[in-house]
Amino acid sequence: MLKVIAEDFIKPEHIETVLPLYRELVAATKQEPLCIAYDLFIDEKDPGHFIFIEEWPDRAALDVHCATEHFQRLVPAINQYQRQDGRIVLMDTVVSPATN
Amino acid sequence: MLKVIAEDFIKPEHIETVLPLYRELVAATKQEPLCIAYDLFIDEKDPGHFIFIEEWPDRAALDVHCATEHFQRLVPAINQYQRQDGRIVLMDTVVSPATN
Repeated sequence: MLKVIAEDFIKPEHIETVLPLYRELVAATKQEPLCIAYDLFIDEKDPGHFIFIEEWPDRAALDVHCATEHFQRLVPAINQYQRQDGRIVLMDTVVSPATN
Repeated sequence: MLKVIAEDFIKPEHIETVLPLYRELVAATKQEPLCIAYDLFIDEKDPGHFIFIEEWPDRAALDVHCATEHFQRLVPAINQYQRQDGRIVLMDTVVSPATN
């Protein structure tokens, strides 16, 4: 299991521009057969800070996602409105709770 | 609904020290009646970078969590091994997928 956090930082004047692009990206990605979870949140202190929380079975599934038509078309369309580089963290280990 | 990402950065020589503290914190928090989700992951590129992905009904529930005995005891015990300040992002807006 691969958990992913991907963060984008969008210029304030372009938030309304990117919202429909994000909505299309989320809708299309959720239809990918290998997608376990793909949800997009907004920082309550910064409306241009968008955060994806994703779950994929493995790295190969994430690579398939990144090669899809919708990803290849929509991500560059969104990124032209970035105010700074995005940030991505891949996490494949969960710390299980204590069993006692 | 309140989604939270909380990140800690632990000194490499103290990772083994904090793991049982994290396990106890996750186990105790999952038993809180208001906790919807509280999972801890590790950055696959940085074993000292711990990431909580949390879900609470609202800010008041998060405040209750931060006031619990286990939080008040375990978080300072973990934080003494930090190599840099942690980072927390509160997110209360989800971008719903396009409906068409």
